[in-house]
Amino acid sequence: MLAVASPEDALKMIDEHFGAIRTAAEELPIYDAYGRVLAEDIHSREDVPAFDRSTMDGYAVNASDTFGASETLMAMLKPVGTVHMGETPDFTIGKGECAYIPTGGRLPEGSNGVVMVEYTEDFGDGYIYAQSSIAPGANVIYRGDDVKEGALLLKTGTVIRPQEMGALAAMGYPKVKVFQRLKVGILSTGDELVDVDAPQTGSVVRDVNTYALSAGLCAIGAEPVRYGITKDDHASLTAALHKALSECDAVLISGGSSVGTADMTHRIIDEAGKPGVFLHGVAVKPGKPTIAGDINGKPVFGLPGHPVSAYFIYRIFVAPVFQKMMGQLTEQRREIAATMSRNVPSNHGRQEYIPVSLTVGEDGSTLAAPVATKSGLITTLCRADGFVCIKRDAEGLRRGEAVTVILF
Amino acid sequence: MLAVASPEDALKMIDEHFGAIRTAAEELPIYDAYGRVLAEDIHSREDVPAFDRSTMDGYAVNASDTFGASETLMAMLKPVGTVHMGETPDFTIGKGECAYIPTGGRLPEGSNGVVMVEYTEDFGDGYIYAQSSIAPGANVIYRGDDVKEGALLLKTGTVIRPQEMGALAAMGYPKVKVFQRLKVGILSTGDELVDVDAPQTGSVVRDVNTYALSAGLCAIGAEPVRYGITKDDHASLTAALHKALSECDAVLISGGSSVGTADMTHRIIDEAGKPGVFLHGVAVKPGKPTIAGDINGKPVFGLPGHPVSAYFIYRIFVAPVFQKMMGQLTEQRREIAATMSRNVPSNHGRQEYIPVSLTVGEDGSTLAAPVATKSGLITTLCRADGFVCIKRDAEGLRRGEAVTVILF
Repeated sequence: MLAVASPEDALKMIDEHFGAIRTAAEELPIYDAYGRVLAEDIHSREDVPAFDRSTMDGYAVNASDTFGASETLMAMLKPVGTVHMGETPDFTIGKGECAYIPTGGRLPEGSNGVVMVEYTEDFGDGYIYAQSSIAPGANVIYRGDDVKEGALLLKTGTVIRPQEMGALAAMGYPKVKVFQRLKVGILSTGDELVDVDAPQTGSVVRDVNTYALSAGLCAIGAEPVRYGITKDDHASLTAALHKALSECDAVLISGGSSVGTADMTHRIIDEAGKPGVFLHGVAVKPGKPTIAGDINGKPVFGLPGHPVSAYFIYRIFVAPVFQKMMGQLTEQRREIAATMSRNVPSNHGRQEYIPVSLTVGEDGSTLAAPVATKSGLITTLCRADGFVCIKRDAEGLRRGEAVTVILF
Repeated sequence: MLAVASPEDALKMIDEHFGAIRTAAEELPIYDAYGRVLAEDIHSREDVPAFDRSTMDGYAVNASDTFGASETLMAMLKPVGTVHMGETPDFTIGKGECAYIPTGGRLPEGSNGVVMVEYTEDFGDGYIYAQSSIAPGANVIYRGDDVKEGALLLKTGTVIRPQEMGALAAMGYPKVKVFQRLKVGILSTGDELVDVDAPQTGSVVRDVNTYALSAGLCAIGAEPVRYGITKDDHASLTAALHKALSECDAVLISGGSSVGTADMTHRIIDEAGKPGVFLHGVAVKPGKPTIAGDINGKPVFGLPGHPVSAYFIYRIFVAPVFQKMMGQLTEQRREIAATMSRNVPSNHGRQEYIPVSLTVGEDGSTLAAPVATKSGLITTLCRADGFVCIKRDAEGLRRGEAVTVILF
């Protein structure tokens, strides 16, 4: 008989079993890799820039030719060519010479700085007049100034955001290796459940968990596989679990884990493989009857039937390890700092998570208000932006207290 | 000749032209609607719950039969049936009677409260003994307590997150209307540009903008359509723009908008339709030479060639109106509060945006450090988490100053 675990121990156990597992890598064109997780270290293949280049539109010069120049004492320079974008100049800059160069153009041999076009004058006499002095290196980025060949730039586990996408393109990576999405099967158990499109006949309960957990998996980049509603009997649930395990990397089973007459999930998970169930019961409210099993290396989680409880448990105990299995270096926190706008009592003796809605106060700060505890499921789902943890030993939360809101 | 606009005026003009436009709606199964924006108001189609139900496992009773009960003076109740999940009880509860009821079970006629199973005893003598009194309504959620039929629950413009997905399922919505994704064409102009898979020959510049902007569009739920690199001549750019306009809802053109010898973007956008270009030049650094045009109701933006500048302008001036066009009630802010970890001087006389990298300080606060201004493109892209705005009249930012970081 497994003892009820503290939330910290539960997270630890789950991480011990699955935290080192990674999905396989796949190679994608970079434009398909937005939001994906790098499965390889990215090194620069070359010096960048590959050549000394101008950062402004202006004139490439020998900086010393401009020393002492001003609006009233302009430096007279002879243009000996024009630099064109994408071309290597076929001329050099000698003493007293210059060449028009656009932003990004390659510095001609002999030049070591660029006078911005705004600080020059062209009186049409065949010369360019610099109205300002520049130091050597002004408005120039040198070969390798950005990155040197071989430098490690992006590490395995980095999520590809727009800036990483740009860096990959700049470094000449048309394809990139990323971790595959974790395929997670979702089973809902309960004889009372009907699918979302069933009409309300008076006593039925819709299968909310399939959809909320589906979305929760999409939110972390996993791929939900919906197996729908399974009857609450040994044969049906066993068959459904085996099918899901054969097709997915992990399985979520909601319902069938409460102190009720239909609790057989623990037994079915244990029967499905080794080592079996390693966690049953976590000292949190809601969600105490949470089950975690290791079936030949695949995670199987038993979640509560109530959708808000099921989602809490998924969010706190399941999603982090799934993100780790998809290679993320650090869990995308999806948390926000806020201030409680009301007192919340708590005397449950368990770590408690309460749903909160967020508003912006007059001073621009984020306020968190508890969603009324007697609210029904739909009201809670429509109002909750996330939830706040009340530690086991705390008496509750005070109005004005700083909290971390875990976004839904 | 259009005057350079302040950032506030630029945003206002862009919003005036496009802020009222919406993409068409499409109907999707809800499990495909994660992250999409509701294009319809969602009302409850029924009372929820549709019947009075128990929130605990226990016994349905007349509350008055338990008044005065305690562990030493238990109330004796006769079980007259068992409530099963998903079924309407076919018996009633009379005085002194009870029935086992699981969490979520329907209250039998005649009962008005539930004693939790933990507060009962079954001595095997045919009676159930309640050890605690309950008030009427204890552990019960009444019909309509959650939502009443016809109540407006989710408004047009709401982004579907996991909680909204759960609410839609609970309310019996197998399908939902959402705004279509905005199709945005991306053109990169510049004779010096080569595609990402071109080898570095020494003078070429890779087309970073196509990829960074692609990812930036994915980040807001838009659909990028990549047209690649266009040569810097009137005929090529005109043909490319016309093709993009015929296939997309909006177009981004990067490069070709600086004070250079190849600036014809303004003219080509003007020639493409009416009313044409309404903005050319915004008093921001980087990104001053920004162009916005209205081509028969379709937005066409001319962005700088430098990828960090192009992305800034996209992020600040383009993405918000695109999100509005896809129906979002409020722009997903994607901002974070932070403290500057270093001074940043600024004396440019223009509103300036500087890229910053974020770290977490010892006290858990978020720190923003400027990415060195002479950093090259790749270094900036690999280090920047977002950027901070320095207002035109500010002298810069001070170490310790509170700032808002606009995430990349």
